[in-house]
Amino acid sequence: MNDTIAAAALERAAGYRTRFDARFAAYFDALADRLDTPPLSRFTPRCLELLRDLSLRGGKRMRVALLYEAARLVTEERVPGLEEAALSLELLQTHGLIHDDIIDDAPTRRAGPSTYYAYRREFPDDERTALALALLAGDLAAFLSLRVLAEAPVPAEVRQAMLDVQLSAGAEAVTGQIVDLERDAHPLPDEELLHTVTEYKSTRYSVLAPLRLGLLAAGEDPVRHDRRLRRYATLVGICGQMRDDYLDLFGDAAATGKPVGADLRAGRRSYAVRAILAATTGAERAVVETALGDPRCTPDTVDRVRDLARRHGVDAALRADMRRTAEAARAEALTWRPHWREEAVAFFARLPLWSVERTR
Amino acid sequence: MNDTIAAAALERAAGYRTRFDARFAAYFDALADRLDTPPLSRFTPRCLELLRDLSLRGGKRMRVALLYEAARLVTEERVPGLEEAALSLELLQTHGLIHDDIIDDAPTRRAGPSTYYAYRREFPDDERTALALALLAGDLAAFLSLRVLAEAPVPAEVRQAMLDVQLSAGAEAVTGQIVDLERDAHPLPDEELLHTVTEYKSTRYSVLAPLRLGLLAAGEDPVRHDRRLRRYATLVGICGQMRDDYLDLFGDAAATGKPVGADLRAGRRSYAVRAILAATTGAERAVVETALGDPRCTPDTVDRVRDLARRHGVDAALRADMRRTAEAARAEALTWRPHWREEAVAFFARLPLWSVERTR
Repeated sequence: MNDTIAAAALERAAGYRTRFDARFAAYFDALADRLDTPPLSRFTPRCLELLRDLSLRGGKRMRVALLYEAARLVTEERVPGLEEAALSLELLQTHGLIHDDIIDDAPTRRAGPSTYYAYRREFPDDERTALALALLAGDLAAFLSLRVLAEAPVPAEVRQAMLDVQLSAGAEAVTGQIVDLERDAHPLPDEELLHTVTEYKSTRYSVLAPLRLGLLAAGEDPVRHDRRLRRYATLVGICGQMRDDYLDLFGDAAATGKPVGADLRAGRRSYAVRAILAATTGAERAVVETALGDPRCTPDTVDRVRDLARRHGVDAALRADMRRTAEAARAEALTWRPHWREEAVAFFARLPLWSVERTR
Repeated sequence: MNDTIAAAALERAAGYRTRFDARFAAYFDALADRLDTPPLSRFTPRCLELLRDLSLRGGKRMRVALLYEAARLVTEERVPGLEEAALSLELLQTHGLIHDDIIDDAPTRRAGPSTYYAYRREFPDDERTALALALLAGDLAAFLSLRVLAEAPVPAEVRQAMLDVQLSAGAEAVTGQIVDLERDAHPLPDEELLHTVTEYKSTRYSVLAPLRLGLLAAGEDPVRHDRRLRRYATLVGICGQMRDDYLDLFGDAAATGKPVGADLRAGRRSYAVRAILAATTGAERAVVETALGDPRCTPDTVDRVRDLARRHGVDAALRADMRRTAEAARAEALTWRPHWREEAVAFFARLPLWSVERTR
């Protein structure tokens, strides 16, 4: 694979993010006029403002890049419907993040307050109303996500297929969240369960759905390519989840926008937490078990768990796992060459290695 | 208006309910196979079971009757797409009820446990997980509601229009819930605000959406009839909300499936609560204010508030308001005669008076 082609693909991805962020801001600017909201309400505009804040406050927009490059697998011409699909993907993400932060009682998201905690700050004596408003903000984002897609300027049958993709993605992400809670009821879940959680909780809506939507908008039937799309998406999904889990413990809080050790404190059996549990016994295991699920666990304790993990080579093993998975995803993408355009294949082949590089 | 025609319309409505309940049960029977859920999960089937329990546990299915009769305004032939629209309406309702009961911290719904409290009973030491699972169950119901509609066997442009109706209904119901919370921050909201809350919180998805969906399925463009549909829906919505608010205080707990005075305890400025606040001063008003928003308010106190309300004629005034509103809705329906089929017009003319009768 030509390095120049891969470099050009990376540059395109950066461009998607810039253009998308501007488009997303414009979407929210127009929203107040387009949404039929009750007159004289103050709570409704505040809700839209918080949706906007969280939505625009960054994120890598990897879904947007996957979407645009999936269309580019087929054509380099401008493809109608991608803008609406991109908005739909990121609004569905906003929906998921808001509800996720209620579930996790998480104060911070994307280096700012979670929607739930933004409301808690506004209703310091009324936690119930704060919870209610955050829950409703998340619900609204879900409906908005589907509404914007229903307006895509594409033929009716394409729009319907795109809606089907997002509706499945939404439902599967919810069941993923449910198994995520179930996983944490296991003392030591096996790795297969973690892969299943990742597949439903993030791969389907964050990788597979963008691929399908991009192909659909470009006039290609993703059902014909279902097995190869799924193989690639599953590997990229695992890679991304491993990276997030790795960064949660071994990363830099300033870069991730979340405090270090959040998974540990919340009792989440992440790839990293599971690996530490599996690697330790006796007194060491007891240190991990005590910290696990203790929201008041101190930074010092998190440091101890991390040092312990490093002594057992958990960080290095995770990095090696990630690299292996990324290589497998790259190999899958390279088999796409006979079917699709070289420059976009180069993007998909290069993408998995990013995840690994972003852990350094 | 011929009484025989009206009586036949009422009989049809009872038939819709029976047939729909059987269809709804069949939908849930098939759901586990049709939904792509994670293997080996126990939490996911339990979630579907709770969705089924709540969904099948009654409800008047008024939305279903409105839907079928709206199609009958146009034709008495069998209309494809109504079954899916009916499932979609009631699943959206399930979504709303589940999240509503989290917001209100309500243990009871439709004479059984709310989904939230069903989970709280299953996780007695882990309120957070119970909240999370209930929230996710509600999210899943929303996606299922839209998925079932996306499968309606109707032409693509009709299906798209039906999805647009449900997506707007969903978004507007959420903003209605938001203003509902805002209303309760007012010491004494004026009646206009209560009408606005009703319009967004229930009329749009419970009356207007079924009318639009039924007409769409029958091949009629509801946009052409927008003003008359809205006038009727608004009146019927207010009537229904007044009835619910009336029954909450003056009704029989065995018939409503909820404890008497729930609105009062929850601090909800319902039509009934607002009327009592407006009718009382001094020591009497203080009795109401003290009970309002106190979850520990005793049945004796609720009785005192109710007696006080009766002394001021609040119950009679509410019944008179309801009857006036119902008559106005009936008058609106009767203006539909030149456009639509007589027997279905008779149903819509008769319907508003049911609300009033159901308070006795």
